[in-house]
Amino acid sequence: MPKYVEPVSRLIEELSKLPGIGPKTAQRLAFHMLSSPRDEVVRLAEAMIDARTKTRQCSVCFNITVDDPCEICSSADRDRTTICVVEYPRDVIAIERTGEYKGLYHVLHGVLSPMDGIGPNDIKLRELVARMKEPVSEVIVATDPNVEGEATAMYIARIAHTINVRTTRLAHGLPVGGDLEYADEVTLSRALEGRKEI
Amino acid sequence: MPKYVEPVSRLIEELSKLPGIGPKTAQRLAFHMLSSPRDEVVRLAEAMIDARTKTRQCSVCFNITVDDPCEICSSADRDRTTICVVEYPRDVIAIERTGEYKGLYHVLHGVLSPMDGIGPNDIKLRELVARMKEPVSEVIVATDPNVEGEATAMYIARIAHTINVRTTRLAHGLPVGGDLEYADEVTLSRALEGRKEI
Repeated sequence: MPKYVEPVSRLIEELSKLPGIGPKTAQRLAFHMLSSPRDEVVRLAEAMIDARTKTRQCSVCFNITVDDPCEICSSADRDRTTICVVEYPRDVIAIERTGEYKGLYHVLHGVLSPMDGIGPNDIKLRELVARMKEPVSEVIVATDPNVEGEATAMYIARIAHTINVRTTRLAHGLPVGGDLEYADEVTLSRALEGRKEI
Repeated sequence: MPKYVEPVSRLIEELSKLPGIGPKTAQRLAFHMLSSPRDEVVRLAEAMIDARTKTRQCSVCFNITVDDPCEICSSADRDRTTICVVEYPRDVIAIERTGEYKGLYHVLHGVLSPMDGIGPNDIKLRELVARMKEPVSEVIVATDPNVEGEATAMYIARIAHTINVRTTRLAHGLPVGGDLEYADEVTLSRALEGRKEI
């Protein structure tokens, strides 16, 4: 079968291994790289190797970090008695962007999902339980508001109660700037339930 | 604004520069690389640099090659009087797969497209005209069967006629294994026009 010259077919093959990149996209990306300035390709290749080799998971909160413990875990300005539990490092960024949260984090790197065969030992749950046994006043479970996220939150809450740690969950309600008309029934009934005096 | 640690945010930034890769996909790819075995990331990075540095365009046909002239241009088994003109290196692979063609190629690296500001000097047309002045019996124009491809074919045919070189175009008709019912009107009328005695 005729193929591209070896360095090109190998590049297409390696690119095809990336998630969500099919053979057509891999070919398109490969030819883009062939026609890009050499410096640009080298910069991307180095960024990949750098990111892979210079970062690690924080041994305390499992967020992505260069130094261990991470900047947040080692900061003197953070409230060390509050832990916000999230699914992925991107969620830490999202919450940090609010500028409202001053506690620590715990990144699970996933959610419980029996359908996908992901149980308590496949995510950083044991490590969370260990942290909850240190003096902690509140665990905010900020997993996604979907089936797996809720199930994971319930699982954490159950363990937290056995060791007398207060657990909270982010409020459900209407998105700010949203349109009441377009809110789904479940969100709307949760917004009603959680209504506040004004 | 809170961001990922520098090596990660730089990787996301570099990945976002690739065509068709938005910030969300770049983030997804970056985190995939962070959790992949180090070897795999290095292998992809090396494949990128190798493909970029070890390949070039053949100085005769402008196909992607490691050696110059390329394997096809320097082969003694190919008919050197026939040139098949294609838009991109991927088209060479497609025609080679048929196993039916024994001539040489010429890769334009694009098509004429006034709408996108691509004129004759932006693709390898001058180089094709130079090759047509050598002893050539036939130029097969295998650009894509769309507006730009047809316009480019017409442009090449016009030049070829002034220097008395025979030009042909790939046949239009029904795709083999296709369904007559689903063929568009233009393809169907071309298939009728090009009908053959059986």
